[in-house]
Amino acid sequence: MLRVVLVEPEGEYNVGFIARLCKNFGVDELYIVNPKCDLKKAVEFSAKGSSILLNSKVVDKFTDAIYDLDLKISTSSIADSKGDMLRKSISPWEMINYLDKNKIGLIFGRESVGLTREEIFMTDLLVHIPGNPDYPVLNLSHAVGIILYEIWRSRLTSKENSGIYHGAISSDTLKLIDKYLLALHDLVRKSDSDGDMYLALKRSIIRGLKDEEEGRAIVRFLRKTYMKIIHSNE
Amino acid sequence: MLRVVLVEPEGEYNVGFIARLCKNFGVDELYIVNPKCDLKKAVEFSAKGSSILLNSKVVDKFTDAIYDLDLKISTSSIADSKGDMLRKSISPWEMINYLDKNKIGLIFGRESVGLTREEIFMTDLLVHIPGNPDYPVLNLSHAVGIILYEIWRSRLTSKENSGIYHGAISSDTLKLIDKYLLALHDLVRKSDSDGDMYLALKRSIIRGLKDEEEGRAIVRFLRKTYMKIIHSNE
Repeated sequence: MLRVVLVEPEGEYNVGFIARLCKNFGVDELYIVNPKCDLKKAVEFSAKGSSILLNSKVVDKFTDAIYDLDLKISTSSIADSKGDMLRKSISPWEMINYLDKNKIGLIFGRESVGLTREEIFMTDLLVHIPGNPDYPVLNLSHAVGIILYEIWRSRLTSKENSGIYHGAISSDTLKLIDKYLLALHDLVRKSDSDGDMYLALKRSIIRGLKDEEEGRAIVRFLRKTYMKIIHSNE
Repeated sequence: MLRVVLVEPEGEYNVGFIARLCKNFGVDELYIVNPKCDLKKAVEFSAKGSSILLNSKVVDKFTDAIYDLDLKISTSSIADSKGDMLRKSISPWEMINYLDKNKIGLIFGRESVGLTREEIFMTDLLVHIPGNPDYPVLNLSHAVGIILYEIWRSRLTSKENSGIYHGAISSDTLKLIDKYLLALHDLVRKSDSDGDMYLALKRSIIRGLKDEEEGRAIVRFLRKTYMKIIHSNE
């Protein structure tokens, strides 16, 4: 199941074009968080994707659009600034290796300012479309089109994307890894922590995980570590 | 040299978006054949691609836009109708194999009816972006974006060794990760442990690590976790 999430989109034409793209590339659900434009006008730009727009789910809060997802992928035109853990990104063709989950969400920010750091923090992976270093900033709907194309392309081509094969790792395991990492992070961070340590370890594990067995062993390791700290403090 | 040729484009926003995409993906020239829309209005949609639009070459005839090209690639949303030789197409990722020419032109037709059969006939290859069979017809500028992305992508991926780019992660960082993982493992394992948890986590991190910065953040996380346990036990 593939869901596109638009966060506070500002342009009618972008929302309409994106609905059309969702139809072109077989997206299952469109969620729109707190739209800043007229969705009725957007229909004019959606051509035969209008049904997707008319059936889209409009929600007030970011979390309402992502809480039930197994894998949350945020996107940004700003990526890989030195020293900024949050902005470390993967390319669309690297993203392909991680899509063997049930409910996958592709999350796109505002035309003007993209996603906030808080929003990116709540996601599992950050994807950046590399472009001309002089001007890599794509228009919103074109970024959506390229990401959706890449996923569609990967379904059509055989396993040409080498790299790590992401076996069948269950969503439960990913959620448990995230849960214990967050809990450990809460125990060891200083109050002014920016979450770098948590982000770095979570993303490395997600990217590097090979199969369910490994995932469960990691959950065991993290849980035992967490319990050790909790019980030591009793 | 890469040239984008638009034949009788009808929508200002498409022309503007395409100029922006040309900038995003390093296109050298934009030719517009007999435009059917107001190019001044198009500038509004071109963002920082406006210079490409202002420097575009407007010509009256199709042949004026293509006569000096070494390779002429036409595009269509209609492809591979049975028995129709003209419409036999290649995919964008197959197109990549033919781009070792000096002057390459990517030719896109009208929003309403695409390129004529006569126009396609004058080109060397026909590219079709495969999409949902129920509705594969992309908006013009989104088709341009995907074709340009595919070319840009091929330049980047041919430089990579495929898979996750493994930056320059120092041996020191890898050793520190290993040291703290081992120390934590010693603290939490039962005596009969076979080391599964340790192996799983270490290998996932090593495979998934993106760069030295991430590596150091992970070392910090592991060290703080270790110290927390040690100090709790004092």
